[in-house]
Amino acid sequence: MDWGNRFSRTVTDRLEDSAIALMMREAAREGALMLSAGEPMKELYPVEQLRESFLRVLSDESNYWGYSKYRTGVKPLLEWTERWMREEGLLPGWVEPENIFITNGSQEGVSLLTGALLDPGDTIMVESPSYPDAFGVFRRDGVILEGVDLLPDGPDLDAMESLLATKKIKVFYTIPAYQNPTGFSTSDEKKRRILELARRFDFLIFEDDPYRNITFEASPGGTYINAAGDDERVLYLGSFSKVIAPALRIGWIVAPSPVVTVLEKLRIAGTLCLPDVIQHALHDLVSNIDFNKHLEKICLAYRVNRDAFVDSLERHAGPEGLEINIPSGGFFIWGKVPWIKNAGDFAMYAIKKGKVAVVPGGHFFPEPGKGNGYLRFSFAQVTPPMAEEGAARLARALREYRDLQ
Amino acid sequence: MDWGNRFSRTVTDRLEDSAIALMMREAAREGALMLSAGEPMKELYPVEQLRESFLRVLSDESNYWGYSKYRTGVKPLLEWTERWMREEGLLPGWVEPENIFITNGSQEGVSLLTGALLDPGDTIMVESPSYPDAFGVFRRDGVILEGVDLLPDGPDLDAMESLLATKKIKVFYTIPAYQNPTGFSTSDEKKRRILELARRFDFLIFEDDPYRNITFEASPGGTYINAAGDDERVLYLGSFSKVIAPALRIGWIVAPSPVVTVLEKLRIAGTLCLPDVIQHALHDLVSNIDFNKHLEKICLAYRVNRDAFVDSLERHAGPEGLEINIPSGGFFIWGKVPWIKNAGDFAMYAIKKGKVAVVPGGHFFPEPGKGNGYLRFSFAQVTPPMAEEGAARLARALREYRDLQ
Repeated sequence: MDWGNRFSRTVTDRLEDSAIALMMREAAREGALMLSAGEPMKELYPVEQLRESFLRVLSDESNYWGYSKYRTGVKPLLEWTERWMREEGLLPGWVEPENIFITNGSQEGVSLLTGALLDPGDTIMVESPSYPDAFGVFRRDGVILEGVDLLPDGPDLDAMESLLATKKIKVFYTIPAYQNPTGFSTSDEKKRRILELARRFDFLIFEDDPYRNITFEASPGGTYINAAGDDERVLYLGSFSKVIAPALRIGWIVAPSPVVTVLEKLRIAGTLCLPDVIQHALHDLVSNIDFNKHLEKICLAYRVNRDAFVDSLERHAGPEGLEINIPSGGFFIWGKVPWIKNAGDFAMYAIKKGKVAVVPGGHFFPEPGKGNGYLRFSFAQVTPPMAEEGAARLARALREYRDLQ
Repeated sequence: MDWGNRFSRTVTDRLEDSAIALMMREAAREGALMLSAGEPMKELYPVEQLRESFLRVLSDESNYWGYSKYRTGVKPLLEWTERWMREEGLLPGWVEPENIFITNGSQEGVSLLTGALLDPGDTIMVESPSYPDAFGVFRRDGVILEGVDLLPDGPDLDAMESLLATKKIKVFYTIPAYQNPTGFSTSDEKKRRILELARRFDFLIFEDDPYRNITFEASPGGTYINAAGDDERVLYLGSFSKVIAPALRIGWIVAPSPVVTVLEKLRIAGTLCLPDVIQHALHDLVSNIDFNKHLEKICLAYRVNRDAFVDSLERHAGPEGLEINIPSGGFFIWGKVPWIKNAGDFAMYAIKKGKVAVVPGGHFFPEPGKGNGYLRFSFAQVTPPMAEEGAARLARALREYRDLQ
């Protein structure tokens, strides 16, 4: 049967392969040393506590096995999340636990908000570069991407204002803290000015914030949603994937009630409900561990990784032309090798010949053809000895690749 | 902030409230006795075995806590599901474990297949009546519904052929076994003839099959997907919700490889992955229990419920004009009270005044205004004493309501 002409236009015209997933698959096939996985370090999952939490939840006699009784998520988890964010100073006054909506990771959050608020042909403004699997959602839904250059302290405001003056923008998608792929954080001053622009040009903001709590020295600043105060135009996306474990598939949206009502309807049409037992277990976990201490522990480990990774990259690959930023949180280091004309071609060469995997920068730009010479590194799963070996392999691959040019 | 004009057309023009969910909420608020929940009986969840399975899985040292390594679902569960379906004679030769794609309940299966294969403006043929939360998915995606009357042995073939002759139908959505809401099963002879029509008029079939294993006396017959043989136009949807527990949120799609490839891309854009731990636990459960014996046990319990429910309804509400079918499997009894002009109005009256909840039939018809006089009952959660009390309340509500007309 020929399926070519049976798929929807979503599939034939819009749906993309996940560039990161394809790269990772190729790297795994070649047995390459991964220097770019956005997944947390396995050793930092609180496995023992997760097990205990599941045990406690499973020995509770309450009914976790039917369809969920909760429309937006398991209530104690909504309450915990709201309280935690409030204590951290991240929430404006209007947010109640009822404004929290649990999602299957923040990827589902991006997907649901896009379905709720954007039509095919609408335009979304994104940071350039930014997270490609979010681009994949927008493109799947026929939404047009417009990039604004991202500088070390946030988006280029002049470029943003020019774009807003010429094109109707419905939503700005931003990762304000330790951004993927750059590691950059948007300054609070820029957030304030972007909120002014949002009011003036009447666009909404999707604030995707999974890395905030992986922090080393400089704070990533406040949230857009808090800075916006009573102006409810910011839809906030949080995630437990990076600070607890991705396998739980638990993220959340913070949104005004009318949006939550719509999300509930999209939830029913899309999946009816999510599995409560995991939300109960997560709530048990965060209630029973010293969560701040847990965060301190993982931040310390990632900081050790970052320091070693930066050091190894600078010593080995610096002499081959690699320039990097040094992020103060998150997972990612954004690198540039100015003499590389085609980073995708180099990345493939590095995987196959050098047995070392990085993600080429082009995938992170909304504009096709941009990003040559850029590479994304992640130190999340890279211990100091792996960093040393990986950086040495990378440097060798760079030398050999240059000799081939 | 006025959200009215900010939502997508999906939300403003297409997204519906789930009629069943609204009704259930109202019934819960009024403390009404529920005679219509499509949820399994709490006492039949294998709670102890689920707990043991989770414990075994959680004490396994393998990494269940990162992003899923599986693109379509946890491999042993795919293999188990394929083997089980094959042993039951439900699968054609071309299906391998790689053709199984795990979903968050079969609701997500319907949603993903709709996204993969239907565009806004396309037409889907559905049984009239059928499952309204599937209609909700089709309508969310701008798909037009055309109903074909459902008879006790399956769709009205003359009506189907007339429709096919006048309108391009892309997909036929069917619940072939113990259908929701009618309890009807499509005969194998009709399945064969519908497959002939599918080839002649070149449409696909979404075969939604969650009730097959809740069976009392007459077998529901074979599957469309098996009957179609090498013709890969049937996309099959299975579910563990009714036979194990809905809270696991595990269903599956059986589809040809090109469709699976597309589903993988939709998975990444929509949610990245699902929580592996639950799939591992389910696989552990079905491998460690005598699954056929478990099915026998639940079928026996539901049969007892059905017998008592039918008896109570006939004795109490029969004299008030209620006519019912007697289903040989599944959860549902389809009833008609010919003198009721507005079943929605009566159902509200019954909830508020009679403290008894049934779902009015109108919600199950794709055609607005149809279904007057019809009521859907479910015996899934209704034990014999509840059935007796519920039927008595229903009969009283019918009497009092008639007196008001």
